[in-house]
Amino acid sequence: MTLEPSPRSENARVRMAELSEKAGLPVATIKYYLREGLLPPGERTSPNQAKYGEGHVQRIKLIRALMEVGGLSLATVGEVLAAVDAGEASPHHILGIAQQSITPPRQVADDEAREWALATVRDLTERRGWPCKDDDLVIQALVGVLCTIREVGHGWYLDHLDDYAEIADRTAELDFEAIAGLESLEQIIEIAVVETLLGDRLLSVLRRLAQQRASKAYFAQRD
Amino acid sequence: MTLEPSPRSENARVRMAELSEKAGLPVATIKYYLREGLLPPGERTSPNQAKYGEGHVQRIKLIRALMEVGGLSLATVGEVLAAVDAGEASPHHILGIAQQSITPPRQVADDEAREWALATVRDLTERRGWPCKDDDLVIQALVGVLCTIREVGHGWYLDHLDDYAEIADRTAELDFEAIAGLESLEQIIEIAVVETLLGDRLLSVLRRLAQQRASKAYFAQRD
Repeated sequence: MTLEPSPRSENARVRMAELSEKAGLPVATIKYYLREGLLPPGERTSPNQAKYGEGHVQRIKLIRALMEVGGLSLATVGEVLAAVDAGEASPHHILGIAQQSITPPRQVADDEAREWALATVRDLTERRGWPCKDDDLVIQALVGVLCTIREVGHGWYLDHLDDYAEIADRTAELDFEAIAGLESLEQIIEIAVVETLLGDRLLSVLRRLAQQRASKAYFAQRD
Repeated sequence: MTLEPSPRSENARVRMAELSEKAGLPVATIKYYLREGLLPPGERTSPNQAKYGEGHVQRIKLIRALMEVGGLSLATVGEVLAAVDAGEASPHHILGIAQQSITPPRQVADDEAREWALATVRDLTERRGWPCKDDDLVIQALVGVLCTIREVGHGWYLDHLDDYAEIADRTAELDFEAIAGLESLEQIIEIAVVETLLGDRLLSVLRRLAQQRASKAYFAQRD
């Protein structure tokens, strides 16, 4: 079931009807993407016809993933794609843009709490060798979560941040195995976004099942 | 910062004003909980006065955690508390009720997809020694996530379910360290619910930071 990078062979050019079938998307939607500039125009073969290549199929998959799984607005999808098309930024940089757009908004907290949380995050990221830019939305989201945890008085978590960070590192390594070997920037971003969001859901559910087992084992010992 | 079980000493009984202060909640809200039967009445000391014990403080913390962090409705909170008060069910059973109420709803999928996903879940849970009841909301949520993953064509995940399950097991073990040693059922449930939900958020954000590091390392190798 592993995804292989699709060949961008010139022979694979198809008409709109076939593109629609290949992409699993109505012709009207594809034309909408073309009008909005999310998809580059096809190669014109006559005044009323154009042909589309494998790049169009990949681009459509990426747009759908960003919008349907990622919940990104058309405008944000446009920004990510513009970065892809500019061709100057590295995959790491473009992944960063995509990641910012799928990070939940930060929560409200007072200044004292935010300062404490930011100091905690700085220490943690330094220990882990993780990046830590104050204006990074992910950093701000972490600051927000830590403020909430402290507010509800669950200090145990704060004492075990490194244990959860260790789990996050293991997860991220696994996540990156999925894009190892992919060449197409569209595919790399699509998989990174989809895997981040679906992976959040998957891990959250798997964790609940694992908790059921742990709960049974833990309370059986005590009963 | 570790939470200790609070003593339920008879000497700790306080009036409403003090209870409000201890619980960090307005008197009106506490009276509302009393009227709704979420809180047991205090011990009446005169026709117009009653005193409240440490059990009331813990119960209020649990109600707030379930409603504010867990997003549970008043009715669902009532169900969880009724199970607690019935005193017959084991902590494992009551944690199960609480967990069902904080599990996201299942997604729509066709019959063929659901059957495939259910078979996949059965195999996985058998390999892991996890419980697998078809009507469990967590099982149904996992079925839904797997259907979505298959639909968007991300087979890589399906080939690595066991790796993510391994991470979930490690996380659940860590989660259960937080409640080790707690005696009060209210505290056990409160911490289990809060840690599950805040933990989802915490892990999701930590994972993104770890991905930033992984992305930098991965693409630096290629550049």
